[in-house]
Amino acid sequence: MSEEIVVIEGDGIGKEVVPAAVSVLEAVGDFRFVGAEAGDAVKDETGEALPQETYDTVAEADATLFGAAGETAADVILPLREAVGSFVNVRPARAYPGVDAVRPETDLVFLRENTEGVYSGHEDRLSDDLSTLTRVVTTSASERLAEFACEYVDERGADGFHVAHKANVMRETDGRFRDAVVDVAEREGVETEEVLMDAFATRVCLDPTQFDVVVCPNLAGDVLSDLAAGLVGGLGLLPSANVGPDNALFEPVHGTAPDIAGEGVANPSAAILSAAMLLDHLGYGDAADDVRAAVESVLADGPRTPDLGGDAGTEDVTTAVLKRLD
Amino acid sequence: MSEEIVVIEGDGIGKEVVPAAVSVLEAVGDFRFVGAEAGDAVKDETGEALPQETYDTVAEADATLFGAAGETAADVILPLREAVGSFVNVRPARAYPGVDAVRPETDLVFLRENTEGVYSGHEDRLSDDLSTLTRVVTTSASERLAEFACEYVDERGADGFHVAHKANVMRETDGRFRDAVVDVAEREGVETEEVLMDAFATRVCLDPTQFDVVVCPNLAGDVLSDLAAGLVGGLGLLPSANVGPDNALFEPVHGTAPDIAGEGVANPSAAILSAAMLLDHLGYGDAADDVRAAVESVLADGPRTPDLGGDAGTEDVTTAVLKRLD
Ligand SMILES: CC(C)[C@H](C(=O)O)[C@@H](O)C(=O)O
Ligand SMILES: CC(C)[C@H](C(=O)O)[C@@H](O)C(=O)O
Repeated sequence: MSEEIVVIEGDGIGKEVVPAAVSVLEAVGDFRFVGAEAGDAVKDETGEALPQETYDTVAEADATLFGAAGETAADVILPLREAVGSFVNVRPARAYPGVDAVRPETDLVFLRENTEGVYSGHEDRLSDDLSTLTRVVTTSASERLAEFACEYVDERGADGFHVAHKANVMRETDGRFRDAVVDVAEREGVETEEVLMDAFATRVCLDPTQFDVVVCPNLAGDVLSDLAAGLVGGLGLLPSANVGPDNALFEPVHGTAPDIAGEGVANPSAAILSAAMLLDHLGYGDAADDVRAAVESVLADGPRTPDLGGDAGTEDVTTAVLKRLD
Repeated sequence: MSEEIVVIEGDGIGKEVVPAAVSVLEAVGDFRFVGAEAGDAVKDETGEALPQETYDTVAEADATLFGAAGETAADVILPLREAVGSFVNVRPARAYPGVDAVRPETDLVFLRENTEGVYSGHEDRLSDDLSTLTRVVTTSASERLAEFACEYVDERGADGFHVAHKANVMRETDGRFRDAVVDVAEREGVETEEVLMDAFATRVCLDPTQFDVVVCPNLAGDVLSDLAAGLVGGLGLLPSANVGPDNALFEPVHGTAPDIAGEGVANPSAAILSAAMLLDHLGYGDAADDVRAAVESVLADGPRTPDLGGDAGTEDVTTAVLKRLD
């Protein structure tokens, strides 16, 4: 093992949880870590939230572990997703035994289109009163996502996947998305079921076990996965992967948590679980499973950070995870 | 009292719950009811889901009570919102004592922009691979919504309102929306707090009491209010009002429920609560309060339809509500 992993702590608790995740990676593998900078602090210093050097380093690496950025989050994360050529954002949202959740039976994975929709949207100020945004949907990006989804469903042993959309209103664009995704799945022999994104929001609260893998356009995936985070007890436990053809970026779904930043009490679980997804991506599936098992075991009966009702610090939790990896 | 109320049952359980709501209106007031048709059945017969005659009748009435439409929902409800000149969709989402809810402390009102966003979006098929949608945001529509919100907050005795948006990505369009709404509120001396729509989705699950009145762009309001419906136990209890300057249309948030349509077991509560909002709109606030109290009392200890775990029919529930209005 000697892959190059770029490490971007970013702002706030990124500076606390990313080092925790790196120590876990060091414990299970032999990687070259390259530090890089992005976020509010860099912008204050240099005028740029995402220096070109960071972009290039990320683009050339095997994988990147990113923490969080503050006000500049969109200026950092959207170009970085592009830098790794990410076409899908993989967002598992599951509850853990021992962690308070409004829906403890939740175990979902969102596969979010990661390049277009309103995110690639060109905006115009057409008059003092009127602005527009051009939302973009292509068959090619939708198909690529669907191909990934079919493989993913197979690896997960899922029965198929749901396609969430709003094609009853966005008939042409979300219609194109839906048709492309369903066509690929049919060709691959994978079952799909459609669900309107508003109906999904209601139904997932009533009974999340109705769903398993959910394929969504970009903004739908953003909102619906954050909704699922609410059902499992918050963003503190959710990892994510921005996957491209041969590069990827991993990040906890949470932000910089300015209220607790610097206090050493941030929950490192989401960052460590993101590191596990990184291990999967690099082909170290066994190490990834070990890390997930260690985190799960600590969540069940190990030390807890204040967000989970405990009074342990980031280091206590990290040490406990490392111990169970021994 | 002799206002003209247009009654459109539509499809599925619309044919069961709307007559229930009409019988409640008859019990508390003296209105002229005018029947009109729209939905799947009319489309099958005439080729048009929304006959021009229905559109005109709705446009000229004092208020409309609408049930639900099936496959043709968007073809019916979007033009009807336009027919009444509706600029805001008012969607209260509250839990009721005695009704199973994942978050029984939920008591929210969404004020959803009802004319633009992706809904007024022009769509284009630009190539075999590419389609676009032009999302529209105007300062004037945003200000009109904000003025309504300021009055609403005052009547509700709320402390202010939240503005949900995604201006970190849709900087120009949602930025315009946010700025216009916040400016009006400042001028009116009403407090506002911003929240990103994805963060709202997480936070409202964790603790809905953080929020009260939530002002949103069109699609955000669609999805976030349906999310809140999930927190209070489903769509069966949620009324809504499409309010224009001097006309309005009222509809339960639920659909046609094809699985139970025709069986006489649909829950009429959402339709009856929509009728209560109609009474408010026409200036009969006391009658509206009476209807709400009657529904609440039946929900607490009266007969229940199967969706709430009972075995009563639509008529049993309606009779119980009418009795408590006596
Ligand atoms: C920071 C923001 C641009 C980003 C997004 O909308 O994708 C975030 O919400 C996320 O989900 O990673
Ligand atoms: C049927 C559909 C067009 C409609 C909407 O998206 O507004 C519905 O979901 C609603 O919320 O009333």
